[in-house]
Amino acid sequence: MDEIHRLLSGVRIEETPFLVLDENRLRENARRFRAAFPGGRVFFSVKANNHPQVLQLFAEEGIDFDVASWGEIELLAAAGVPAERMIFSAPTKIPRHIEQAYRFGVRVFAFDSELEVEKLARLAPGALLTARIAVDNEGSFWPLERKFGISPEEALRLFEVAIRLGLKPHGLTFHVGSQNSDPLAWVRALERLRPLWKALQQNGSPLSCINIGGGFPSQFDQPVPAVEEIAREVLLRWQGWFGGQAELWVEPGRGLVGDAGVMVTTVINRARRNGHEWLYVDTGVFHGLIEGLEMFHFPYNILSKKQDEQRIPFIVSGPTCDSADVIRSEVYLPASLTLGDRLYIFPAGAYTNSLERYNGIPFPPVMLTGIKAKVGV
Amino acid sequence: MDEIHRLLSGVRIEETPFLVLDENRLRENARRFRAAFPGGRVFFSVKANNHPQVLQLFAEEGIDFDVASWGEIELLAAAGVPAERMIFSAPTKIPRHIEQAYRFGVRVFAFDSELEVEKLARLAPGALLTARIAVDNEGSFWPLERKFGISPEEALRLFEVAIRLGLKPHGLTFHVGSQNSDPLAWVRALERLRPLWKALQQNGSPLSCINIGGGFPSQFDQPVPAVEEIAREVLLRWQGWFGGQAELWVEPGRGLVGDAGVMVTTVINRARRNGHEWLYVDTGVFHGLIEGLEMFHFPYNILSKKQDEQRIPFIVSGPTCDSADVIRSEVYLPASLTLGDRLYIFPAGAYTNSLERYNGIPFPPVMLTGIKAKVGV
Repeated sequence: MDEIHRLLSGVRIEETPFLVLDENRLRENARRFRAAFPGGRVFFSVKANNHPQVLQLFAEEGIDFDVASWGEIELLAAAGVPAERMIFSAPTKIPRHIEQAYRFGVRVFAFDSELEVEKLARLAPGALLTARIAVDNEGSFWPLERKFGISPEEALRLFEVAIRLGLKPHGLTFHVGSQNSDPLAWVRALERLRPLWKALQQNGSPLSCINIGGGFPSQFDQPVPAVEEIAREVLLRWQGWFGGQAELWVEPGRGLVGDAGVMVTTVINRARRNGHEWLYVDTGVFHGLIEGLEMFHFPYNILSKKQDEQRIPFIVSGPTCDSADVIRSEVYLPASLTLGDRLYIFPAGAYTNSLERYNGIPFPPVMLTGIKAKVGV
Repeated sequence: MDEIHRLLSGVRIEETPFLVLDENRLRENARRFRAAFPGGRVFFSVKANNHPQVLQLFAEEGIDFDVASWGEIELLAAAGVPAERMIFSAPTKIPRHIEQAYRFGVRVFAFDSELEVEKLARLAPGALLTARIAVDNEGSFWPLERKFGISPEEALRLFEVAIRLGLKPHGLTFHVGSQNSDPLAWVRALERLRPLWKALQQNGSPLSCINIGGGFPSQFDQPVPAVEEIAREVLLRWQGWFGGQAELWVEPGRGLVGDAGVMVTTVINRARRNGHEWLYVDTGVFHGLIEGLEMFHFPYNILSKKQDEQRIPFIVSGPTCDSADVIRSEVYLPASLTLGDRLYIFPAGAYTNSLERYNGIPFPPVMLTGIKAKVGV
């Protein structure tokens, strides 16, 4: 609570809900990541938090950017970030976004399918490619391995296709899964990449970088390793395995912003139903706190200023008419909580505000049509 | 496919994704609902589709409106709908929204907790109350009973509290759960309400209406009962049970709009991973198709124009860097589908575009703060 008091001391908004991002914490996180990987490059995953001031601040701190769409590039361009500081890491890209990014000057693109290589050859001629390798996501809270990544063998084959199409093999990338608490997950992934790396070096298509991706955890209800701890495990092997030949890239999203955000919300109702105490607050899973959804079940910390009271378990729920709008199912909070009391929900700096236009992609336009239609968007 | 061809014949948008709403189907649905419940009132649940033209069209067709927030009232007011045609059915309301709705002229409010009654007494003096009763959600695809509703006994007690506070008991309401395919679910709910209804009649607080809520299904992969079929079961009992004393209200959301919408999308990638064929399209669960999320798993129909070909199972996935962005996990589609092919996803008229500002509630504002903070929203 002390930290929240300090954080909110400068806040002038009276009406909840609002999301507070701590500028100091953001800068501190940026500096810690850069210091943890000396000589490496740190790319912030814009999908985790696309607030213009956050992007501006990271740009000032020497952080580069991983983008998922043209929409994210536009946001960065508005913050004065040049194309050389962006990599397009989404393995599957909307074709028009590739064209726009390439015209803007972005040159590094990820892939994990043959069709993507063909798209890139056509829409981004001569681009530098990073292959997304599927790696074990053990230790992660939200695995990403199912939808993304190829085997090292397939990467070798697709790099050959890429070369024939005039593209340039540039690096390897992977993702150990969101919120990974096992520092050795990154080490296991690097180990899986070694034979491929060597093969490409010997092959005459030496690569320039290995991007160890994101997955750096924020503290929900359990302690998690710090970035320094994960970096130590990685760096311990780096020199021996890639001997000064691979530039180390890292792509944190949650790790740079998660613990810098607090969602401030107010109790709007309370009821006892089927033996459970329900608290309803004025924002929920459809308005930023999507990771509370049952299928994601990230255990947000939820605090009240009523510190000394007896605590009982509550279901903390959002304001919509949807039964899925539950932020956390069993959280011990002061027994007297009622209408008008504030609650502080964190870590809420990652995957909250950016969900409004997730991955920089807008909602589809809507049109009404029909036999007597007034056609138009 | 024929219907989709006809529907899209007037469409001038070339670039996907976009959501097409069929004006004729919307009008036809409105007329069918009004005809199915003669003498009743049909309130459209704005949360299902908040597009201004949809609201305008329903207003023209004599449909009234169920709102969940001040934001939805503002949209209706912009379409020229007067307050008398709105009921505020969200059982838990943001206090400021009650004040604004009441000032605007809305007089009917739902409740399902004592605290809500107290809020309403303070912020909407003299308002007309409907009690949301918890009912069995058997037969529904997405039950709503956990988070909402009180027992008939509790409703009786809270109506007494309401009367003491100057509020007026007005009706009973319930929800059989979203996408309910069992017409008898509504009948069972009405049966549960009968003793309470009678008690209140005898009590000197006779009620004016019973709102049988929503839950009217759209056709995903299985046939579903038509509104006429559900209405027949309800009306068969209505006169005998409530003998001309209760006005019949109905509150469809999905039922009025679901089958009027088609999401038009394009294949942006294809890959084989772990024995599965993945198709990636240019919109997904974070951009309207949220009901495809694993926890909701509504089985969207997905069609291609390549009708005659051999079909194989695909995982159809959205464009974001999130492994949860899967629209449907196993759908048989033409084996040759590839980059640039269009797919048609439906029913997509309900809970798609409205998710951008769900329940009429915006995303929380964001501010950066800190010791050297530039405070501001």
